[in-house]
Amino acid sequence: MNEFDLIRDVFQRQAAQSLDYSTIRCGIGDDAAVLQFPPNQQVVTCTDTLISGRHFPENTSAFAIGYKAVAVNLSDIAAMGAQPHSILLALAIPQKLKENKGWLTDFAKGLFSCCHEFGVQLIGGDTTRSDVLTISVTALGYAQQCIYRSGAQVGDVIAVTGTLGDAAFALPEVLSGNMCTLQHRLDTPTPRVSIGTMLNGIATSMIDVSDGLIQDLGHICYESSVGAILHLDKLPSHDCLSKLTDDKRIRLQLSGGDDYELLFTYPSHVTLPQSDVAVTIIGEVIEEKGISLYHLGKAYSYHHAGYQHF
Amino acid sequence: MNEFDLIRDVFQRQAAQSLDYSTIRCGIGDDAAVLQFPPNQQVVTCTDTLISGRHFPENTSAFAIGYKAVAVNLSDIAAMGAQPHSILLALAIPQKLKENKGWLTDFAKGLFSCCHEFGVQLIGGDTTRSDVLTISVTALGYAQQCIYRSGAQVGDVIAVTGTLGDAAFALPEVLSGNMCTLQHRLDTPTPRVSIGTMLNGIATSMIDVSDGLIQDLGHICYESSVGAILHLDKLPSHDCLSKLTDDKRIRLQLSGGDDYELLFTYPSHVTLPQSDVAVTIIGEVIEEKGISLYHLGKAYSYHHAGYQHF
Repeated sequence: MNEFDLIRDVFQRQAAQSLDYSTIRCGIGDDAAVLQFPPNQQVVTCTDTLISGRHFPENTSAFAIGYKAVAVNLSDIAAMGAQPHSILLALAIPQKLKENKGWLTDFAKGLFSCCHEFGVQLIGGDTTRSDVLTISVTALGYAQQCIYRSGAQVGDVIAVTGTLGDAAFALPEVLSGNMCTLQHRLDTPTPRVSIGTMLNGIATSMIDVSDGLIQDLGHICYESSVGAILHLDKLPSHDCLSKLTDDKRIRLQLSGGDDYELLFTYPSHVTLPQSDVAVTIIGEVIEEKGISLYHLGKAYSYHHAGYQHF
Repeated sequence: MNEFDLIRDVFQRQAAQSLDYSTIRCGIGDDAAVLQFPPNQQVVTCTDTLISGRHFPENTSAFAIGYKAVAVNLSDIAAMGAQPHSILLALAIPQKLKENKGWLTDFAKGLFSCCHEFGVQLIGGDTTRSDVLTISVTALGYAQQCIYRSGAQVGDVIAVTGTLGDAAFALPEVLSGNMCTLQHRLDTPTPRVSIGTMLNGIATSMIDVSDGLIQDLGHICYESSVGAILHLDKLPSHDCLSKLTDDKRIRLQLSGGDDYELLFTYPSHVTLPQSDVAVTIIGEVIEEKGISLYHLGKAYSYHHAGYQHF
């Protein structure tokens, strides 16, 4: 099977089945894809790479790899308050996986599963061989206006969707080959797309928690020239984490990456509309720079180390 | 140096220096880039990956790798008749290159050199470590309408920009460590951006020659449901190739990849406007499927093998 057959066989056919031609003039099969976005929209775009053994354990299922490669990018689009629209896939795969049609089919199933769940279409890509499985997805989306990291105001509350630390809790279990209730949070994280767009016009700043709460809140503080207070006893926790000692739970929640929850600020007088995911207020924006940690009303000392890709 | 320092140090500062904020609401530094394209434009996007030792010889200079990673993508945008606008960079680099600030700086110089030459801006990306140097660039551009592979009409002439076979001529020399007049055609190919946009409204179909003339003309024929006659004595040749035997020259020109010239069809009665690059008519579109080869008026037998990425 050559490059063209591979793409056509596994991706192009599935992509074509669900292509919405109202906004896609040309998908896979030409030199580039051609999109017609709704009028008066800004185009939002990002790229994120997953590398085997670095961004996911090597024993991760092909389905999960495909799903996650899309999900992490949709999460970035959601964090801008934008509506995801389409993706490009740059896939570099080892020969042995390329020859394994089952692997490719499962990978495509995962990829399209995430696409379909969020109304996103595969519009193009590039497939090549490499000794290291490397998946770069570029996502495109749109919004009339976006939510930046730089808009947090002193007095805003700080809130987060879902629960924190789940992926970091699951990682050592999965690496050890153990069953873990939270494995799906590591393998197939849910990009918070609908609340992301709902917060457009409400949130003053937003980011997705991919490198750990401290580090990502640090980005908002830095870009907004503000500081923050975090109440560690208020961090939303899955039952698995609630059972841990406070110190262990807090370490997972502050420094653990890969949660893909939305972290955002908004004026304290605003009541948020109902959403499909829980939202928890975890702190306040203050003038004094830096992030001050409190646990049960007392200052909490913590040496942070967020996730570094190097 | 951590991931953030690296990106900030080498890329973000250079990118920011030249950012044109009239169409870029947000570049590097948030979850995603935000673009405001001119009104009534279609958005054109593609992604292409370069892998060390596969898409360029391992001894290729860092400058050339950076330049080429952008150029091959701008070539795809040009082949749609669109104006390139911006790029995203997904860079996976080995630890030893990451620690080599000279390499990174030269890579960035090459990347920005190609960007500046064609008015393109780096708006975002992702940097990660990998054992294999892997560079995925996504390009974005725009056009009121695009030129597809599927529009060739029976009776159209077939034309190509520049000269063919240059990169394939240079490759074995470069791999052997020899000097070669045509090395720049392999290392820093020129995307045919200005003639690409100029052909918008004139060309009936277009593709860039990246996998070899036969294979890429085959794509136009397949998508347009037509056939083609090629006159092999008319293929435009650099002096280095003119000196070869006909058979050797023809092999390089028909099956050699990496030329990044534009191959297009247009009605025979049209006179093309002046352009910055030579254009040569090399054949005609016919009804009968397949590609018929003629050399000095006689049928020419050729077993083709285009470039396969696998």
